[in-house]
Amino acid sequence: MNAMDRQPRRVVADKVTMAHGGGGKAMRDLIEDVFTSVFCPPGMEDQARLMDDALTVPGARLAFTTDGFVVSPMEFPGGDIGKIAVCGTVNDLAVGGAKPLWLSAAFVIEEGVEISTLRRIAASMQNAADDAGVAIVTGDTKVVGKGSGDGVFITTSGIGVIAPGRDLLAETVQPGDVAIVNGVLGDHGAAILAARGDMALSTEIPSDCQPLNHLMEAILSAAPGTRVARDATRGGLASALNEIADAAGVGVEIGEDVLPLRTEVKGVCEILGLDPLYLANEGTLVIFVPEDQADAALSAMHATDAGREAVIIGKATTQHPRTVVMKTVFGGLRIVDMLVGEQLPRIC
Amino acid sequence: MNAMDRQPRRVVADKVTMAHGGGGKAMRDLIEDVFTSVFCPPGMEDQARLMDDALTVPGARLAFTTDGFVVSPMEFPGGDIGKIAVCGTVNDLAVGGAKPLWLSAAFVIEEGVEISTLRRIAASMQNAADDAGVAIVTGDTKVVGKGSGDGVFITTSGIGVIAPGRDLLAETVQPGDVAIVNGVLGDHGAAILAARGDMALSTEIPSDCQPLNHLMEAILSAAPGTRVARDATRGGLASALNEIADAAGVGVEIGEDVLPLRTEVKGVCEILGLDPLYLANEGTLVIFVPEDQADAALSAMHATDAGREAVIIGKATTQHPRTVVMKTVFGGLRIVDMLVGEQLPRIC
Repeated sequence: MNAMDRQPRRVVADKVTMAHGGGGKAMRDLIEDVFTSVFCPPGMEDQARLMDDALTVPGARLAFTTDGFVVSPMEFPGGDIGKIAVCGTVNDLAVGGAKPLWLSAAFVIEEGVEISTLRRIAASMQNAADDAGVAIVTGDTKVVGKGSGDGVFITTSGIGVIAPGRDLLAETVQPGDVAIVNGVLGDHGAAILAARGDMALSTEIPSDCQPLNHLMEAILSAAPGTRVARDATRGGLASALNEIADAAGVGVEIGEDVLPLRTEVKGVCEILGLDPLYLANEGTLVIFVPEDQADAALSAMHATDAGREAVIIGKATTQHPRTVVMKTVFGGLRIVDMLVGEQLPRIC
Repeated sequence: MNAMDRQPRRVVADKVTMAHGGGGKAMRDLIEDVFTSVFCPPGMEDQARLMDDALTVPGARLAFTTDGFVVSPMEFPGGDIGKIAVCGTVNDLAVGGAKPLWLSAAFVIEEGVEISTLRRIAASMQNAADDAGVAIVTGDTKVVGKGSGDGVFITTSGIGVIAPGRDLLAETVQPGDVAIVNGVLGDHGAAILAARGDMALSTEIPSDCQPLNHLMEAILSAAPGTRVARDATRGGLASALNEIADAAGVGVEIGEDVLPLRTEVKGVCEILGLDPLYLANEGTLVIFVPEDQADAALSAMHATDAGREAVIIGKATTQHPRTVVMKTVFGGLRIVDMLVGEQLPRIC
């Protein structure tokens, strides 16, 4: 984005037209009025130029990640595509043990989208960035014709710094390690499902969409031996646990009776025949910590906003390597396999 | 992307289905077989963890940029959306004076896209990355339903390092500075126009799509006083020159007779009433250098593949500040304004 040395002109159109993607004045006005006036990226070039002291510490490393967001509907209880786009990338950095610093945001906008919708999305992104303590420093907009897109797609990328010696890796999980989640499962998936309206669900469930970096800092400071953290997004907790079991070559055992689930989410799942273990989350993570640091991690989590409802859900085992198993409330054992296809499309 | 500790399964489907975006096994297979087997990102986590010695040099800075690509058609003479997605971001970093190091790639794929098309795009991206000497280190895929996208959209983000003391800025351009372009104008725009087929143009013009980072290194080493460089993408050379004139508060004067144009591109523009100054390029840049370093810059450019046809096209002036003016071949003066709307949609 180029923030020129002058007052941005106000975009007068109500809706995005193809001209807003053409590289000329109309595009510059859209970018300056709707996006850079909110994000305030540094400098006036097409790239951000950045430095942070944490990067110059010997042994520090850069973390770099990207995610595309195509959630439908774009706005839903508890968030919108802008909030998810910021939180999702912040959380990818955070669960890898990095301190998130800078984000980029690229928009693919369908012709006809209301300018007011873009303004709400931009404001929501800046709010989420403020919550997380990160800056949106560079971006891009493209416009595609009516019917060649669907509203707004946003791709964010993020840069963070990993402190020296910190190396969270799924393959370091050991049998005996304790699995903890920070809060209730499936709220985001259930929220989107309800917001789509085609299920005629009267329940309004807010998405759990939130930045997890402050929570991760608390965990890593209280339980420095933490092996790995994963945000349980697409594919839900089941997929995150399977990825960890697979990478570490351990079994994972969780208890159905301790899984934190909102009554409304349980209800939605029962009515629709969905399994909350596979429902997407946008503010929920699972960590594996050595048994002797589990209490410390749990207490630290309880002291944060995002971890107030943290609970131990299970542990890594030597039995059934690379397999996740759930003890059901009836005392049986059920294999929790990885999701094969899709449960809900366009969930994030 | 998670490259698990096992052999990737081959994707057996011919076409992308919604299941490939669901966060489960089908998605993991698609990512591993089609993308990470080609890009070979480091590590197995959802983020790349990186370090480069150049970053630890005191005074060095990070450059960070992003661009979305929605070019239609996805494949055209001289390139495809994958090649553009890599070159475009490499070039944004390079013209800012950064050495490009790492890229991310996020794909929004429309249901029904052929897996073989994705394989060609991935191979093309890796080729372009090899040419530029950068690594594609992290990525993401999303799938949207038929009719909610259009083939494949790719967003790349890039990280580079800016050497200490290097600070290319449009506002540093001074009257008297010389403007040089590295090669012919408008090839990309004309190539896309011809490739769309609806103009029934029989001419096949290859896009100029290429990485410009090696050229930029040659320029900055021969002409360290270089003020600014801009790649003349959407909006063409006219928009790049206007942005520079605007930021620097100078006038810019170019000569129509010296503008490098392929005969075929001139022909296409004459037939269709287009102005080559506004046609998009994907491997063409303009630099402003102090007059006494212009020859050095030009010679250095001529010694590179991307700069073989470099020519001086004009200069910055004290007259008509913030305005770009062209001396026509008939001896008149014509104001070259910034593009207002769009000349060609979906050009990159």
